[in-house]
Amino acid sequence: MIPAFEPRDPDFEVRVRESLARQGLLATFAAELRSVRPGAVDIEVPYSPALTQQDGFFHAGVTIAILDSACGYAALTLMKPDMRVLTVELKVNLLAPAVGDSLHAHGEVLRPGRNLTVCRGDAYAISDGGSKHVATILATMTGIAELNDG
Amino acid sequence: MIPAFEPRDPDFEVRVRESLARQGLLATFAAELRSVRPGAVDIEVPYSPALTQQDGFFHAGVTIAILDSACGYAALTLMKPDMRVLTVELKVNLLAPAVGDSLHAHGEVLRPGRNLTVCRGDAYAISDGGSKHVATILATMTGIAELNDG
Amino acid sequence: MIPAFEPRDPDFEVRVRESLARQGLLATFAAELRSVRPGAVDIEVPYSPALTQQDGFFHAGVTIAILDSACGYAALTLMKPDMRVLTVELKVNLLAPAVGDSLHAHGEVLRPGRNLTVCRGDAYAISDGGSKHVATILATMTGIAELNDG
Amino acid sequence: MIPAFEPRDPDFEVRVRESLARQGLLATFAAELRSVRPGAVDIEVPYSPALTQQDGFFHAGVTIAILDSACGYAALTLMKPDMRVLTVELKVNLLAPAVGDSLHAHGEVLRPGRNLTVCRGDAYAISDGGSKHVATILATMTGIAELNDG
Repeated sequence: MIPAFEPRDPDFEVRVRESLARQGLLATFAAELRSVRPGAVDIEVPYSPALTQQDGFFHAGVTIAILDSACGYAALTLMKPDMRVLTVELKVNLLAPAVGDSLHAHGEVLRPGRNLTVCRGDAYAISDGGSKHVATILATMTGIAELNDG
Repeated sequence: MIPAFEPRDPDFEVRVRESLARQGLLATFAAELRSVRPGAVDIEVPYSPALTQQDGFFHAGVTIAILDSACGYAALTLMKPDMRVLTVELKVNLLAPAVGDSLHAHGEVLRPGRNLTVCRGDAYAISDGGSKHVATILATMTGIAELNDG
Repeated sequence: MIPAFEPRDPDFEVRVRESLARQGLLATFAAELRSVRPGAVDIEVPYSPALTQQDGFFHAGVTIAILDSACGYAALTLMKPDMRVLTVELKVNLLAPAVGDSLHAHGEVLRPGRNLTVCRGDAYAISDGGSKHVATILATMTGIAELNDG
Repeated sequence: MIPAFEPRDPDFEVRVRESLARQGLLATFAAELRSVRPGAVDIEVPYSPALTQQDGFFHAGVTIAILDSACGYAALTLMKPDMRVLTVELKVNLLAPAVGDSLHAHGEVLRPGRNLTVCRGDAYAISDGGSKHVATILATMTGIAELNDG
């Protein structure tokens, strides 16, 4: 279903990994990159009571945060080396309670663009019993020139 | 702008406070309820490096999580005592980087309904220099009968 | 990709066709049903200057209207005989100008539910040169008991 | 609530009126501009059986089309003279059936930007009995350089 995308930066995976490593929130979530391909990124978060809503399930805020990150990084894999990615907007439908041992978010590029990249993604709660589709996202990302910190 | 809503449960504030206290994620965020009125809830989160994206600002996941909670609890204030609230879907526009000493989310009911309650809200980054509008949300909430834990 | 859905009403196609035939707007658009299957509906609209935006392309309002209808009817195919469908909310990304001889909307059920059905869909502009993906939708539908007109 | 915006083109109203006059769909709807101010536009559509859904109410496609146009033109009022406006994405909650003698859409700019303008709006069904809030929209608009047709 995903068209084959040609990355403009051969080091796209390094860039994604370095950016994610700087995210305090994803460290708080113990989030891990599971896959980084051109136009598609997967992120996983293990269950923790620190990440729950009032019934002990994963909080929708966790689901949406990693869906947003998976989509944003999927967009970043196709950007030029000197760009960073910002979320313009996103919309999410929550399909089922996120009950499981871990939460898996997949994000992919639907339409790359010069200024705007449209992404979509899905989140799954993973447990012994298998995988349950818990959320779907549609998001608009933009690239801006990386600030030179030097 | 907000119509005056009549709560169906006089203890609506207790219910919101007890539910929020059970949320592991909001404790992780050190989130605090600032205001609970019929149809409107305010939540605040102090800045922490544990809540950042790659540039050191508040992560959009934090902004969206507390906007979602503010909207959900705004809906809950108008529900019957035996109901709890679930997010059906939400959509957010991110308007500016969330740079500040704290993040403030306001959620309010736009249209209460028997099955579905539509809410909207706004998030602000607060610093010495004042308050900056960083995000706006539109969300659909539903109420379901509270599980009897006894 | 679409799970096989079992319709609860064997006459689901008749119901969709009769409902669509009562829609004044879809007649104004000269819209035609191209396919009605359990959980998936396709609608097509031929180009007309009466349906354009300021540059002579299909107006986004046409694209969104038939995406909404395709999704709504996809949801209706899985509902009980005495139900009709209402759109709770929808969100659309417009991916490219809708230039073509006709506009094709596909809607499908992502998750059927007792009260709420989540659908997604895509629109394509069709011309001699082929098919171009012009929009994608994510929508929430609800079913309500049919009014007895008798 | 709306901040006072300073238009960059003193002829913003002429531009909006000329653009709307070129829209085939809005002519089909017999839509009329009710108000054009910097950052805010109102559009009205009289009831017609040609614009209905299956129950004889205004079709959601009409509501969304004029909300989209009101928001897009609100964004256009703040753009430079040589720009035209495109909808990037939109999301709408439908709050009540659109039953009335006319449908009124108000769109306003929430945050103008160099590349992207975020708008919101509301639609009302107008009848003898008064005005009913039937839909709310949140939308992202972009400006692109006007094509020279000469």
